[in-house]
Amino acid sequence: MARWTNLRHGAPPRTGIPAMTTALALTQGDPAGIGPEITLRAWLAREEHGLAPFFVIGDPEFLGSIAARLGLAVPLVAVEPEEAAAAFARALPVVRLPGGLTVAAEPGQPDPASAAGTLASIDEAVRLVQAGRAPALVTNPIAKHVLYEAGFRHPGHTEYLAALAAAPGAAPPTAVMLLWSEDLAVVPVTIHVALRRVPDLLTADLVVETARIVDRDLRSRFGLAAPRLVLAGLNPHAGETGTMGTEDRDVLAPAVERLRAEGIAITGPHPADTLFHARARATYDVALAPTHDQALIPIKTLAFDEGVNVTLGLPFLRTSPDHGTAFDIAGKGLAMPDSLIAALKLAGRLTRAQDGVAA
Amino acid sequence: MARWTNLRHGAPPRTGIPAMTTALALTQGDPAGIGPEITLRAWLAREEHGLAPFFVIGDPEFLGSIAARLGLAVPLVAVEPEEAAAAFARALPVVRLPGGLTVAAEPGQPDPASAAGTLASIDEAVRLVQAGRAPALVTNPIAKHVLYEAGFRHPGHTEYLAALAAAPGAAPPTAVMLLWSEDLAVVPVTIHVALRRVPDLLTADLVVETARIVDRDLRSRFGLAAPRLVLAGLNPHAGETGTMGTEDRDVLAPAVERLRAEGIAITGPHPADTLFHARARATYDVALAPTHDQALIPIKTLAFDEGVNVTLGLPFLRTSPDHGTAFDIAGKGLAMPDSLIAALKLAGRLTRAQDGVAA
Repeated sequence: MARWTNLRHGAPPRTGIPAMTTALALTQGDPAGIGPEITLRAWLAREEHGLAPFFVIGDPEFLGSIAARLGLAVPLVAVEPEEAAAAFARALPVVRLPGGLTVAAEPGQPDPASAAGTLASIDEAVRLVQAGRAPALVTNPIAKHVLYEAGFRHPGHTEYLAALAAAPGAAPPTAVMLLWSEDLAVVPVTIHVALRRVPDLLTADLVVETARIVDRDLRSRFGLAAPRLVLAGLNPHAGETGTMGTEDRDVLAPAVERLRAEGIAITGPHPADTLFHARARATYDVALAPTHDQALIPIKTLAFDEGVNVTLGLPFLRTSPDHGTAFDIAGKGLAMPDSLIAALKLAGRLTRAQDGVAA
Repeated sequence: MARWTNLRHGAPPRTGIPAMTTALALTQGDPAGIGPEITLRAWLAREEHGLAPFFVIGDPEFLGSIAARLGLAVPLVAVEPEEAAAAFARALPVVRLPGGLTVAAEPGQPDPASAAGTLASIDEAVRLVQAGRAPALVTNPIAKHVLYEAGFRHPGHTEYLAALAAAPGAAPPTAVMLLWSEDLAVVPVTIHVALRRVPDLLTADLVVETARIVDRDLRSRFGLAAPRLVLAGLNPHAGETGTMGTEDRDVLAPAVERLRAEGIAITGPHPADTLFHARARATYDVALAPTHDQALIPIKTLAFDEGVNVTLGLPFLRTSPDHGTAFDIAGKGLAMPDSLIAALKLAGRLTRAQDGVAA
């Protein structure tokens, strides 16, 4: 708990690059989005934010052209993953895409021709982290519709990562999305589905499986000895004993009982509207909420630019910025790297904690 | 807009009691709840918060017994409404319940025997404000289940006020709940209903009627020349063009079009999760949201203790604290008057604005 409390409420300000022997793997994302730009800007801010070393998997010539276009003085160096940590202080290390793939893209102009490179960057990142050649994975945003036009068939970025992480012949692991900021961490139990479908999708089994993964990964990845979870109700006032919807009483409360019987410290269902002010937040580590908006409204209200998407349930740690490709501002020098920096910082902190290096 | 902006972002700090010739009418609420206690504490804070004069409609002997029990030095004076403003500086003015009704209650012990007094206080307050003997109404919390046991048949406090406000033989006006704080004002389009029912209850007509009332009352009661409204979507990402639920595209978007055709400045449906951070809030005056939690989560996250419930659509202004009777802490000296003070402050500000007295 001490370590997480430290993470939640902010480690002492640190600057300068921490000493690490391995570097985080960062995917390039869609090359026509803001990924290249925020990657370059994050590297420029490495000392200010005390970022752990990272390398991007992509095409150094393409990244160099973006840097030139934006007038960013970012030296690039093509490296093997093992060389990245040492190179990081003086240049942005780039691990080339496998198979000699190159990247060409016009910022703001998504193009299915770029899909092969986008996917190869993800594939290679998973290979490297699975092989122990990078301690964690950070991903830049992709655009599903661009990949679909090129034949991609997975529901999304996270599901693709889970499929890549699956053992041969085995079902992919269940991934859980956690949104993290210094002030609040939340998990939406249902995510990108119509609100109308939520009451039927929200089974006790789903809540139990989600909470188990959260509890396990808070221990293993965040180093919490005794994670404290809360569950928000589905209905207003958590249904007020069944007078405003029965799911809280009949589905969520029994799920909480099952979890508590397993030794998981979870309470609820609590009225969602009174769960996110400062005094309430001090009583738990992560809040699970039935709907997308119940979870994302409070964290985006409190930490719009600094939210980090953390994928739990995978055999490796993955963080990502909490925004999309933003094609509309790509290449214009307007993109803010704050969320990517937060994603890199969190991955660095958790990785150093795992490795036993003083965070 | 200037006046509202002033209200939203805080008037210059003021202390001392503003000069007014009439006083706000405050109902007693359930006498076994925290209403008596927070009323006494609000009066004690009148100078610090620059509260406009108010009188409570109740039993001065009962209020005196609560003050004695809690050790609060609050002199009480029985008055006619017209005498309250002058008396306010030196004593808490109490207008006696009609018909010689007295009040007896044990804090924390709700009792249907108290329902007659609770309702008489509301009835008298509406009579006084309708007769122009008070400029606005502020209500303390009531407990519906206590009133139901005594034969009360209205769905809630606000519906009861609407019924009292109806012209003889006419249907009651449609009341709209606005939650107000210095940082954010929100309107839930559906309120205390099961989430499962929301997609079907959320008709274009309901959205249009609600937004019309909000627009009209922001002009007439808040003094905004050109109110700016936004509407949050029902589904995640406002449905993303129909791929995650069709209501945003098929119900909410047409409602917004109808309203804009009437000259009401409203935009949306917008993804709800990105509508409540500081930069987004600066672009509108009030956000309408389809569900209870979409509206109440952000305001309770940002302003848990200072939220004010404002009832729009009635022929008079009514504000109330954003909490319930809190029987569990009543009489223990633990109740915080912050939300009642905020409700009295807002009623005072808007009343002074209406009366043309410098706010």
